[in-house]
Amino acid sequence: MTVALIILAAGKGTRMQSDLPKVLHKIAGAPLLVHAMKAGASLEPEKTVIVAGHGAELVEASARDWSNDVDVVLQTEQLGTAHAVLQAGDALSGFDGNAIVLYGDTPFIQPETLDAMLAARAEHDVVVLGFDAADPGRYGRLVMDGEALDAIVEFKDATDAERAITLCNSGVICAKSDVLFDLIDGVSNENASGEYYLTDIISIARTKGLSATVVRCDEAETMGINSRPELAVAEVAFQTRARADALENGVTMHAPDTVYFSHDTYIGADTVIEPNVVFAAGVTVENNATIRAFSHLEGCHVSRESVVGPYARLRPGAELSEGVKIGNFVEVKNATIDAGAKINHLSYIGDAQIGEKSNIGAGTITCNYDGVFKHRTTIGKNVFVGSNTMLVAPVTLGDDSMTATGTIITKDVPDGDLAVGRARQENKTGFARKLFEKLKFKKAKASKES
Amino acid sequence: MTVALIILAAGKGTRMQSDLPKVLHKIAGAPLLVHAMKAGASLEPEKTVIVAGHGAELVEASARDWSNDVDVVLQTEQLGTAHAVLQAGDALSGFDGNAIVLYGDTPFIQPETLDAMLAARAEHDVVVLGFDAADPGRYGRLVMDGEALDAIVEFKDATDAERAITLCNSGVICAKSDVLFDLIDGVSNENASGEYYLTDIISIARTKGLSATVVRCDEAETMGINSRPELAVAEVAFQTRARADALENGVTMHAPDTVYFSHDTYIGADTVIEPNVVFAAGVTVENNATIRAFSHLEGCHVSRESVVGPYARLRPGAELSEGVKIGNFVEVKNATIDAGAKINHLSYIGDAQIGEKSNIGAGTITCNYDGVFKHRTTIGKNVFVGSNTMLVAPVTLGDDSMTATGTIITKDVPDGDLAVGRARQENKTGFARKLFEKLKFKKAKASKES
Amino acid sequence: MTVALIILAAGKGTRMQSDLPKVLHKIAGAPLLVHAMKAGASLEPEKTVIVAGHGAELVEASARDWSNDVDVVLQTEQLGTAHAVLQAGDALSGFDGNAIVLYGDTPFIQPETLDAMLAARAEHDVVVLGFDAADPGRYGRLVMDGEALDAIVEFKDATDAERAITLCNSGVICAKSDVLFDLIDGVSNENASGEYYLTDIISIARTKGLSATVVRCDEAETMGINSRPELAVAEVAFQTRARADALENGVTMHAPDTVYFSHDTYIGADTVIEPNVVFAAGVTVENNATIRAFSHLEGCHVSRESVVGPYARLRPGAELSEGVKIGNFVEVKNATIDAGAKINHLSYIGDAQIGEKSNIGAGTITCNYDGVFKHRTTIGKNVFVGSNTMLVAPVTLGDDSMTATGTIITKDVPDGDLAVGRARQENKTGFARKLFEKLKFKKAKASKES
Repeated sequence: MTVALIILAAGKGTRMQSDLPKVLHKIAGAPLLVHAMKAGASLEPEKTVIVAGHGAELVEASARDWSNDVDVVLQTEQLGTAHAVLQAGDALSGFDGNAIVLYGDTPFIQPETLDAMLAARAEHDVVVLGFDAADPGRYGRLVMDGEALDAIVEFKDATDAERAITLCNSGVICAKSDVLFDLIDGVSNENASGEYYLTDIISIARTKGLSATVVRCDEAETMGINSRPELAVAEVAFQTRARADALENGVTMHAPDTVYFSHDTYIGADTVIEPNVVFAAGVTVENNATIRAFSHLEGCHVSRESVVGPYARLRPGAELSEGVKIGNFVEVKNATIDAGAKINHLSYIGDAQIGEKSNIGAGTITCNYDGVFKHRTTIGKNVFVGSNTMLVAPVTLGDDSMTATGTIITKDVPDGDLAVGRARQENKTGFARKLFEKLKFKKAKASKES
Repeated sequence: MTVALIILAAGKGTRMQSDLPKVLHKIAGAPLLVHAMKAGASLEPEKTVIVAGHGAELVEASARDWSNDVDVVLQTEQLGTAHAVLQAGDALSGFDGNAIVLYGDTPFIQPETLDAMLAARAEHDVVVLGFDAADPGRYGRLVMDGEALDAIVEFKDATDAERAITLCNSGVICAKSDVLFDLIDGVSNENASGEYYLTDIISIARTKGLSATVVRCDEAETMGINSRPELAVAEVAFQTRARADALENGVTMHAPDTVYFSHDTYIGADTVIEPNVVFAAGVTVENNATIRAFSHLEGCHVSRESVVGPYARLRPGAELSEGVKIGNFVEVKNATIDAGAKINHLSYIGDAQIGEKSNIGAGTITCNYDGVFKHRTTIGKNVFVGSNTMLVAPVTLGDDSMTATGTIITKDVPDGDLAVGRARQENKTGFARKLFEKLKFKKAKASKES
Repeated sequence: MTVALIILAAGKGTRMQSDLPKVLHKIAGAPLLVHAMKAGASLEPEKTVIVAGHGAELVEASARDWSNDVDVVLQTEQLGTAHAVLQAGDALSGFDGNAIVLYGDTPFIQPETLDAMLAARAEHDVVVLGFDAADPGRYGRLVMDGEALDAIVEFKDATDAERAITLCNSGVICAKSDVLFDLIDGVSNENASGEYYLTDIISIARTKGLSATVVRCDEAETMGINSRPELAVAEVAFQTRARADALENGVTMHAPDTVYFSHDTYIGADTVIEPNVVFAAGVTVENNATIRAFSHLEGCHVSRESVVGPYARLRPGAELSEGVKIGNFVEVKNATIDAGAKINHLSYIGDAQIGEKSNIGAGTITCNYDGVFKHRTTIGKNVFVGSNTMLVAPVTLGDDSMTATGTIITKDVPDGDLAVGRARQENKTGFARKLFEKLKFKKAKASKES
């Protein structure tokens, strides 16, 4: 049976102390909402409906940035979770499959957990995701009758016996789409908060003779984010798991606690990652590479046997072939570096193509920006770019060519040529000594006068 | 009633294994002594007397560096805490207010705690700061009789019943100044250590019919620093609180454990701080700025919407207006950067003024130092500084001017002008190939000979 | 009596998920095997025999890289620990001293522990290293009869009473060499695994009337490394101890948890290490130096009063005399920097000698590589190297000489001379304004067309 996701993402998140809508705060480089979308996407849903409210335009843009295959509907007033789900009604009108309600501020639900919910849905009309809480606190309690879920009882309405239950409600619910909306029709707001609660559908379902059950998951999956300290705790949870996974997969990290992964980082086996490395979004590193200390990578691809850093910054569009060497204080952006090429020191390579085994000298800069437009630099194979070469793009260096130290390249260099442009060095006899004396005299005078 | 502070700062701190006096070791970028001075300063004291001993000159210099409104008195021999306080007697002669005794190695006493002590002073003659110790160990015990403090009993003199008391003595004491010195006159050194203990004044006060009481604070406030491991623990305590405060105040930090604050760092709400950022002393960052990974800031001001880093170093005197962009491997010192200006890569900008919306190319250097003096560089609005421009200060670039890549600017550039200074590029046909062959031949020869 | 070490290093370490032999994975910058070799080396052994198997060539190279005074023997099949030790038989033929069996994957055995084993050896024929396990799990149990070791019982063969024993076998064993090999001759492989177990020699010894005993060590010393997560835990254990030791020895670290030491790092008292510093192998820092944040040091020597960083990279062969200053985004390799010299910004100094009190301007590069060979740069005393000077090696700057900003130095500069090579700056009136307008026009046109 096909699946639809309904992701609730309308809340403001007052406790975040932020102008940004809560679900757009990030963990591991991706908004909370995207984490929820990714978990749900593993089910290959036919439809994904995002219920937005506060900052709806930003939320929609952020969702579409990750996947354009979504409907975004508006909840103009926040009248409760059942009311929020109801806004997805039109978008799912006529949809004949299962619907799963997820939360944009709950990023850690695992795909296998959702699979288990769908499997249970085949046996029961409504499936609620529950967890055994270490400290149940004020969570809603799940009252079971054997395998059947009898009711969800809010903490404030719970008897002492019910409060002793540790099986709690995550809020994630699955039912056939038409059943879900039919049940929601019966929800009222006659309660202390005056809100329409999604949890009320269980008792309504039982009244109608429908069956409900619970799928259990680890409490950690249900962590909801309501404040920045909680966001920080969630980030730690993500990083801890990502580091452990990388170690298990054969990545060498001497100080894993100092390596930061993004939600989509991929690192191959036997790759070494030194301390203090940050992987922003969109990074793939193949096997047997080395990422040295204090490196920052984003939106790039590092092939096997390549060595990056220390202090290397790979920006989006950096594509490193095998055996490439990027050294310290080097920035590479939107550039393809072919096998065996080296950029070892203090360089900026942007909007460029560098051929096999070329060596880029220290202090080389691709002058890719003229104040308005960006231009490309093309460097062939086996090229030796002398230190402090300025490559005023657009410009091409042919295969086996060379630039002399300090040359400003403004026109193409043919294959095998040497480009030179340099003022002659002149040694002015004794001038330095005279200058030093003059300066010392000035200094003495200045300190005397002050 | 007015207040005077007496801060004891004479100890050597043998366990620090250091030539530096103990109270000058730092937490969060400020000496321990300054932390104590800052806590006391919240009371707006009429007088602050620092009792120095070991390294007194360094201690005085460091104290005056933070506030010149202090008296520094010398305790030439270390004969106990009562003796130390006694040295402040002359400086406070005739002073008619309350005196509070603080410790230069106890940096975490909170202003509210001192307020509470002063409030209690209005009701009692002597007020001692106490704390409920998780592990009372060898601390002095506070023996209470209801709200009245009956005695301070040293651990070694305590009965089993007294040792069972968990309320312990922090050493911080408040009394009217003349009362304090009057009580100290009665302290003798007839004890095992041969020292004059300040704690003895409680029993003397009771004998004289004066009342004493205790104000309680959190044990963490009373942490005294005697060794480097304790200093490290205190730094962790400071950072933990500073990070939690920042999160609560709406700062976004993905990895707060990797962000280091100073005692005086200010960060506005919705500012994002990436992993591995160090704030040395004197930094203010407004709202909605972004401080990217691996950045180091000291004595600088970052306005809203500015983006700093990764790998940016802002040194003292860096003033960034709104929407400024400082990129990777860029150092800025004693320079004002106006709104919307950009310095994106590999540059050193020192002793400079950069106008609105100017763009500073990669590899730009302000040559501000002639070996003796520093000189200023002034750059107007909407200036385009080409890559690898050398600005030999003093020099001025007018509004809307431009420098060509690699130009060495030694004289002013008028508004709207383009400054160029460049050797022509010449392509020497086939020279690179010949050079490569020659080198390869040499190499082959060298490896043959070896 | 003389000592020989037998270090077992033949295992593949399947659980490491790595092509690298297990004992070559590193802790604190040194292979596990080298840690074991270092512990044993404290006994000044007459012979060190390494039993290699998987990746034997790599293992041998790595061992010899640390000490050439070793015999490496091959265990072609892995038939158990007794079989492994047996491979050392030829190498120790005729050796008349004690032999100690160590493990290449057990890096934390302390020299004092080995001393204690040797001392016990004088009283007993066989000495086993044991530890009281917090969680004995599946370790072999040491069954004692007073001070005598009665048997080593494998967990799977142990009775309930034996399983209740918490004294466990580390595997480290000491006996006279001829006794050891004589006992091993009696070991059979008639057990479930079909392997020859070294532990069997205890019962054989008892049968022969020889005495055995146990020396106890801390469980942490016996930590064996079998997986990357265990490697990460071991690294943490190493760093935790190294940081604590440094603090105790008078090093100032504000954030010790962010400082990474190697197995051979030496830091003097009162040296300050700021957050986020990495010490790779081979670093010595004298007293009273300062290593600022985000610095990376390897194979270098920093003398007292020197200041390094932030963002400084000292590579192998960097030798800093007293009072040297290395600033941000500066790389130094194979270079001697004499007292009081400064390299403050954005420079690469490789294969060089810099004299006393010389000042190297921002953006200076030693162009040491011609594509095949490396050449040296020599700079005298009191030299002022202007910003962006290119030093095309081999080249020498004499004492008291100076280079003008942006000069490309290709020939030597005599003492006291000023070297200049620079195209004249020309200001082209109004050209910048025209260029900006042209670009803006192009941009407007481009955006109109798109």
